[in-house]
Amino acid sequence: MTIELVSKTRCFGGLQKVYKHESSELNCTMKFSLYEPEQRADTERFHVLFYLSGLTCTEENFIQKSGFQKYANEQRLMVVGPDTSPRGCNIPGDRDAYDFGEGAGFYVDATKEPWSKHYRMYSYVTKELPTLIRQNFPFISGKFGIFGHSMGGHGAISIGLRNPNLFKSISAFAPICNPSNSPWGRDKTFKFYLGEDIQDEWGKYDSKELVLSYAGPPRKILVDQGTEDDFLSSHLMPETLKDAATANSNVDVELRMQEGYNHSYFFIATFIEDHLKHHAHILNAA
Amino acid sequence: MTIELVSKTRCFGGLQKVYKHESSELNCTMKFSLYEPEQRADTERFHVLFYLSGLTCTEENFIQKSGFQKYANEQRLMVVGPDTSPRGCNIPGDRDAYDFGEGAGFYVDATKEPWSKHYRMYSYVTKELPTLIRQNFPFISGKFGIFGHSMGGHGAISIGLRNPNLFKSISAFAPICNPSNSPWGRDKTFKFYLGEDIQDEWGKYDSKELVLSYAGPPRKILVDQGTEDDFLSSHLMPETLKDAATANSNVDVELRMQEGYNHSYFFIATFIEDHLKHHAHILNAA
Repeated sequence: MTIELVSKTRCFGGLQKVYKHESSELNCTMKFSLYEPEQRADTERFHVLFYLSGLTCTEENFIQKSGFQKYANEQRLMVVGPDTSPRGCNIPGDRDAYDFGEGAGFYVDATKEPWSKHYRMYSYVTKELPTLIRQNFPFISGKFGIFGHSMGGHGAISIGLRNPNLFKSISAFAPICNPSNSPWGRDKTFKFYLGEDIQDEWGKYDSKELVLSYAGPPRKILVDQGTEDDFLSSHLMPETLKDAATANSNVDVELRMQEGYNHSYFFIATFIEDHLKHHAHILNAA
Repeated sequence: MTIELVSKTRCFGGLQKVYKHESSELNCTMKFSLYEPEQRADTERFHVLFYLSGLTCTEENFIQKSGFQKYANEQRLMVVGPDTSPRGCNIPGDRDAYDFGEGAGFYVDATKEPWSKHYRMYSYVTKELPTLIRQNFPFISGKFGIFGHSMGGHGAISIGLRNPNLFKSISAFAPICNPSNSPWGRDKTFKFYLGEDIQDEWGKYDSKELVLSYAGPPRKILVDQGTEDDFLSSHLMPETLKDAATANSNVDVELRMQEGYNHSYFFIATFIEDHLKHHAHILNAA
């Protein structure tokens, strides 16, 4: 699989890069960002941390607004940020709403037409992208971490828990914790990408349900949530995640309610240092 | 003078706000950003630091991309960021180029028609905006600092040196050091805003010339410049500033050439902590 460098910019000692490639999972050209810490020796290898963005984002928002690069360089983490959906596939209706189609892949493998040929972000993040990283970059074998924001927080928790051999550390900012019961999932993305097979298909991608059923090695999930987030009660519902973890001794959810913060990157930037440290601590010990 | 809150978001403990107001200098509605550190006591007052943005920017770029808020809160600095030009004045030609008209006020007071009624960013930054801050916020009297990027670095150095009683500390990222000889100044903004009166008008706004003639209290100006900046030799010319300072014992220019960095906010974010500390150190001692 071939990747092509789109841009390369020095930042906090390391390099913030953007690549593009032809995705076989998504059947379109995709971009992803990759931050490489300053290499201290030719032989140095890095832990890899995936960041999944929220609705409407591309691979650019996170690298421009979160300020993560300082801590990625300090903690020696390579950070990879995919786009949030396939692009340019021209499926009717894929650009009509901010919360469906382009920019709203929701990190699932669609089973319904006309979405199933392209909307396979789950397989893209768990198979194609890890393979690209393994083939092209100085990574430390088998020790990926994953985190994200909002729709990407849902993606990080659900993907992390379903792939414990691939992802050793998980965290999230303001995740959609129970998308089967959130209007974004229930009435739009899950309904049209996955159809009405709620029991079998929806549950595969619902963080609350996955926390309840998780039977892998112990996981501690760091979750930050702003109290002034406009989507808190209607869409995010972090208490469902916390309650589910209470019923499963294999999962510990550290839910930090951050007073006065909203859903923006100003919130993410404020707490991102803690998340990079969380991942580095677990990955270094794994 | 009345100001109106446009937005307010918690960030690194403090509040990132945006205000709008009717500007009497610019004869239009203007916005500015203001970061207020978390107040530790009702009586706490803050030093004020002005940030001037570069070409094409509004008041948004800096607050979203530089990550300055962490250090503003740590250093107890209120940071104010004006827009880069008047807006919505509908002067023929004011939106035809990225480097002239809207987004390119160049921090001068235009003397030529049709620009002179609105394009008065020098007086806006040195008179109207400081007055608004004094009237509305918990500032520490008479101790403002000023910094900026590119066109805003030119603005910060020229405005700072011409107003030593108002601005006690100065720094810049990749400033346009000698705009009278840069295509941006010579062939566009200076030429059309100020006309051909090079000796009297252009020199008022040329940082290199102002460093040469500066006769106020000693100033140490911190300047960071990336070596991979596409505009370095054609537009920025930091060596002219350094040479001028060598000829004037009242001005010390600490020019730091940063290997591998370009003109972007990735460069600014990498070194902004040093700039906030530079200003806090001088303002606290003033």
